[in-house]
Amino acid sequence: MRAKVNLEEKIGLLDSVYSPGIVGYLNDYKLVVVKVKGEFVWHKHDDTDDFFLVLSGRMIIQLRDQNIELSAGEMFVVPRGVEHCPKADEEAHVLLIEPKGTINTGDAGGALTAPELEI
Amino acid sequence: MRAKVNLEEKIGLLDSVYSPGIVGYLNDYKLVVVKVKGEFVWHKHDDTDDFFLVLSGRMIIQLRDQNIELSAGEMFVVPRGVEHCPKADEEAHVLLIEPKGTINTGDAGGALTAPELEI
Repeated sequence: MRAKVNLEEKIGLLDSVYSPGIVGYLNDYKLVVVKVKGEFVWHKHDDTDDFFLVLSGRMIIQLRDQNIELSAGEMFVVPRGVEHCPKADEEAHVLLIEPKGTINTGDAGGALTAPELEI
Repeated sequence: MRAKVNLEEKIGLLDSVYSPGIVGYLNDYKLVVVKVKGEFVWHKHDDTDDFFLVLSGRMIIQLRDQNIELSAGEMFVVPRGVEHCPKADEEAHVLLIEPKGTINTGDAGGALTAPELEI
């Protein structure tokens, strides 16, 4: 039997903010949920666009020349190679879609780099 | 300036049920919104998985051996090659993600086959 995925239920399994969890796959893409609060790290992905859909709460995707303010039901695709830094004042829940193997911190690395973990 | 996409606003631009509208791209994938009501057509996609996320309302993805009942905030990925037929008693709003060029009716064709239209 195949099973649906309830995204908020999956988010409830996440231990902490900026610790992404893989909830499924679409071909060679991973479907990821993450809790966003505070500021992430400036980074870019030279080989892929980066999909964000806010499920609940509000977040900002900072770009170098503008801020993209997202509420629940709003999405934004960061083009490949474009520096961005997510942040949120209050906890927001977000669906990300990226090719398998994409590193969450892109070219920046650092302490917030997370493993690919299925939940 | 780059712009976010409010999915329900985009759905408000759709003329009718089962007339998909492209609201963005993720690499070589199209991001599509669609209104679902009534029964679609049994079909499969031999070359790609098929991503469904319900944004509002309820829908059923019929598979040959089970029904996947989805409410808002729930997603399901139909594996490639698996026959499926979406349906909904009341209008539901859905985000689909598929490779560019994917035909909405898959191998079935017929009257519900829709062009790739950006909205």
